[in-house]
Amino acid sequence: MDFKNYIRDIKDFPKKGIIYKDISPLLANIDVMKAAADALFEGLQHQKIDKVVGIESRGFFMATLLAERLNAGFVPIRKPGKLPYKVYTETYDLEYGTNQLEIHQDAILPGENVLLHDDVLATGGTAEAAIKLIRKLGGNLIESNFLIELEFLNGREKIKTSAVQSLMKF
Amino acid sequence: MDFKNYIRDIKDFPKKGIIYKDISPLLANIDVMKAAADALFEGLQHQKIDKVVGIESRGFFMATLLAERLNAGFVPIRKPGKLPYKVYTETYDLEYGTNQLEIHQDAILPGENVLLHDDVLATGGTAEAAIKLIRKLGGNLIESNFLIELEFLNGREKIKTSAVQSLMKF
Repeated sequence: MDFKNYIRDIKDFPKKGIIYKDISPLLANIDVMKAAADALFEGLQHQKIDKVVGIESRGFFMATLLAERLNAGFVPIRKPGKLPYKVYTETYDLEYGTNQLEIHQDAILPGENVLLHDDVLATGGTAEAAIKLIRKLGGNLIESNFLIELEFLNGREKIKTSAVQSLMKF
Repeated sequence: MDFKNYIRDIKDFPKKGIIYKDISPLLANIDVMKAAADALFEGLQHQKIDKVVGIESRGFFMATLLAERLNAGFVPIRKPGKLPYKVYTETYDLEYGTNQLEIHQDAILPGENVLLHDDVLATGGTAEAAIKLIRKLGGNLIESNFLIELEFLNGREKIKTSAVQSLMKF
């Protein structure tokens, strides 16, 4: 299946000069969404994964499907102020300014095997911050995977201390 | 299975006087998360559902699991400015001020059968706005379902023009 047929280019979103990869057509077609989850799962099916971590918000779409396939618990990493229990916070740089991500302090037990999922790997800043949170809790990151990798942004360089898988490269 | 054992009460979140129902323990246990998705699916398995709509962000967790069980496409309803393609916007009242939700204009085809999912039914304002967006696209709302219903807030009254199902009532 050529998953790229289900990605829609949106010009100048969220700002002028950016071509945004819209995954809505992939999500709206259940056969394609299932096939995408199956494809990301395929390389992991002989791994024991305890927790699948999804990054807010678009990382949540496929992360629960992967959790079900891997028979692993699901853990959300969220934007600041959203998680109600005790959290750890990681600050990371954006083009202008900074951003933060949070994880519940009891979300991963030390030594648990973890899969990280997000929809897009761009500069890698978000994924790198998420990985720091996973490791702070003692999680053993097995793989970071993505529906889409924007190769020209070299995000893989920031997170290649463990396996990286992406379904589509642009 | 008593799903309530996997809901954690957090006092004074997001503000003083509120007891927040944290679904993290349910999500972190794959057997419980699967059982919750199965239970919400059970009453719907003889219905033809074309699209499952999840409300950002916590509605996304179970909505894709329901989409997979129902063999239906998944459609996100998001906060303003997040969806990249042409949208319809619905404004609704909060205790103080207003909020907005958006849906892609091509997300649901006229006459399609739709399931709406969110994690919590509180005052019903959010669900009511989502239902307006679904109907604006010509969707035929079959059911709104929720992990948690806060009965004392009477949200069900606002959305009872079609079926309403909740897994846990508080």
